[in-house]
Amino acid sequence: MDYRELSTPALTVDLDVLERNLDRYAELCRRQGVGLRPHTKTHKALEVARMQLERGAVGLTVAKVGEAEVFAGAGLDDILVAFPIFGGEKLRRLADIARQRRLLVALDAEATAQELSRAAAAQGATIGVLVEFDVGVRRCGLEPGPELVRLARTIEKLPGLKFRGLMSYFGNVWGTPEERRAEATRVAERVEKALAAFRAENLAVEIVSGGSTPSAEFAHLIPGLTEIRPGTYVYNDLNTYYQGACTLDDCAVRVVATVVSTAVPGRAVIDAGSKTLSSDLLGSGPKSGYGYVVEAPDAPIVKLNEEHGLLDITHSQHGFKVGEVVTVIPNHVCAAVNMHDEIFTVRKGEAAGCWRVAARGKIR
Amino acid sequence: MDYRELSTPALTVDLDVLERNLDRYAELCRRQGVGLRPHTKTHKALEVARMQLERGAVGLTVAKVGEAEVFAGAGLDDILVAFPIFGGEKLRRLADIARQRRLLVALDAEATAQELSRAAAAQGATIGVLVEFDVGVRRCGLEPGPELVRLARTIEKLPGLKFRGLMSYFGNVWGTPEERRAEATRVAERVEKALAAFRAENLAVEIVSGGSTPSAEFAHLIPGLTEIRPGTYVYNDLNTYYQGACTLDDCAVRVVATVVSTAVPGRAVIDAGSKTLSSDLLGSGPKSGYGYVVEAPDAPIVKLNEEHGLLDITHSQHGFKVGEVVTVIPNHVCAAVNMHDEIFTVRKGEAAGCWRVAARGKIR
Repeated sequence: MDYRELSTPALTVDLDVLERNLDRYAELCRRQGVGLRPHTKTHKALEVARMQLERGAVGLTVAKVGEAEVFAGAGLDDILVAFPIFGGEKLRRLADIARQRRLLVALDAEATAQELSRAAAAQGATIGVLVEFDVGVRRCGLEPGPELVRLARTIEKLPGLKFRGLMSYFGNVWGTPEERRAEATRVAERVEKALAAFRAENLAVEIVSGGSTPSAEFAHLIPGLTEIRPGTYVYNDLNTYYQGACTLDDCAVRVVATVVSTAVPGRAVIDAGSKTLSSDLLGSGPKSGYGYVVEAPDAPIVKLNEEHGLLDITHSQHGFKVGEVVTVIPNHVCAAVNMHDEIFTVRKGEAAGCWRVAARGKIR
Repeated sequence: MDYRELSTPALTVDLDVLERNLDRYAELCRRQGVGLRPHTKTHKALEVARMQLERGAVGLTVAKVGEAEVFAGAGLDDILVAFPIFGGEKLRRLADIARQRRLLVALDAEATAQELSRAAAAQGATIGVLVEFDVGVRRCGLEPGPELVRLARTIEKLPGLKFRGLMSYFGNVWGTPEERRAEATRVAERVEKALAAFRAENLAVEIVSGGSTPSAEFAHLIPGLTEIRPGTYVYNDLNTYYQGACTLDDCAVRVVATVVSTAVPGRAVIDAGSKTLSSDLLGSGPKSGYGYVVEAPDAPIVKLNEEHGLLDITHSQHGFKVGEVVTVIPNHVCAAVNMHDEIFTVRKGEAAGCWRVAARGKIR
């Protein structure tokens, strides 16, 4: 069956494109001499995680304990929780995973380390810890310098914990290829500053984990980086496209939607709104619109209500008709995927199957 | 257990506030002489739908077939699908519901009516149809006037369908109480124009369905309105608050979150990001920020990543500490609820139980 005959709205992934993206980044990391620990937040699917590990990923990244449980529960190993988990119930579950799988947790505060230590020790588990530092995102992470070493020393003394290295998120590497390259050199300076602090104190840093999709091609510019954690690269999206980090053909995920109304002049309405595409705005390129209509790029999606997508067709050459099927590339694929319980696989335009978005909704 | 001890992030609803909101709108509708057919998109929970029906709601509203299945499957009756459904698979399911429950479907195109008729006739079902018209939202719906009557006449001739009346969404009634009242009078003119076209042709209009939460108090200004379809009123949110249509105390839903990082100066990070609160922007009041931190209103949530909420604490008097619990009122509660598989009920500050967000993710 042609995938455009799926009941709409339907989240779909082109398997040829997905496999090409996976191969490309596996090769990109090999060439740059860094490990690939993909962030699973983009796909949240066991099938894709397995494809990543089969292609040589050194492990997986998640943000929440519930996500770690999904992947660990399916037998996948070496999982980094790249989020400072706090709260007894979650930490107990985390320690439980650590008794069965290799687990790393990132944090940036002594209070968090102490809570984690208590939970690990109570269950006789050992949890590897990465100390998070900030390369300019201004989200989490300590300033590169002696503070980092102090926290690492504290962690070394806490039962149930093992200091393994450093983590940072390179979210500030964003924009055109030139902007991204320039920011990557600034990131490199901050990573070097962090590492210098550890060298000065003679403390070994086994893992230096960084990255994101837009920074992945600049990994070789960052000194001492041992692994990167891109997520979006598996599927790509409009944000990646407008940064020049992929082509539209590299966007593996499309939402199949039906035109349901053309009653209002200058408008076509599709059955995919914010509960299908997410409300995430475009952070690159034109920074407007809620997705790219493949069949009619001249018809911007100017507004989303919960279930309605509103296309401005005033300047479109495309004759929109009620009942017509269109396909939409989302602004931010991680947010769009998170709206769906399943993703339909497509091979050469034919509907091939369906994967569960198994870690969707695992916010705790 | 104090509800602030729930594992975070947790979506919670204060039952006293919910019941008060339900009572208030039941009374508001009675006083204005209009039926209440609440839109379930806000809560997506069987428990709340039952509370609405117990308080005299004339039926329920949904947007998608999958949502209708959830409520119909639980024995709830008289459901309006306020969305122009198109596509064979969905229409077959719709006709299946219609064989067992009273069902209304809104549409604005002959093509949609024909598809619906085919599906209904094939299963020997009869589906009531409301013709959608536009009062100024510019989303779906025909222009008030003879076009509406033409479509109604077509529907009357189609097997399996029964023309029951008109539907419109009053989404343009938005803003301050004065702005909303002024817009409601313009809506009234357009509703009257639609009804006049039917009177001119001697065609009876049994149901005139309109409304939204911000327009609910002005229902009495709209001639001929038989029912309204507010959704948000059950929980309320910042959008409702900044329009002066509720107080902060009327906001029944709060997201309990934990401060997980204060490492970056001027920042506090909570464990509730866009996958917990949604990325929906504020459409009223300051039109900035991603939620209201009850414990520290002087600390705006300036950015959401998927799992991180970033508070600007530069001008806050509140001393944020890692591990501290805060509660957040969302911008747009319908979008926030849709992120969650369950909502935790709270009575007098104590965690009371948990409801499934049963219709979450039912996008088809």
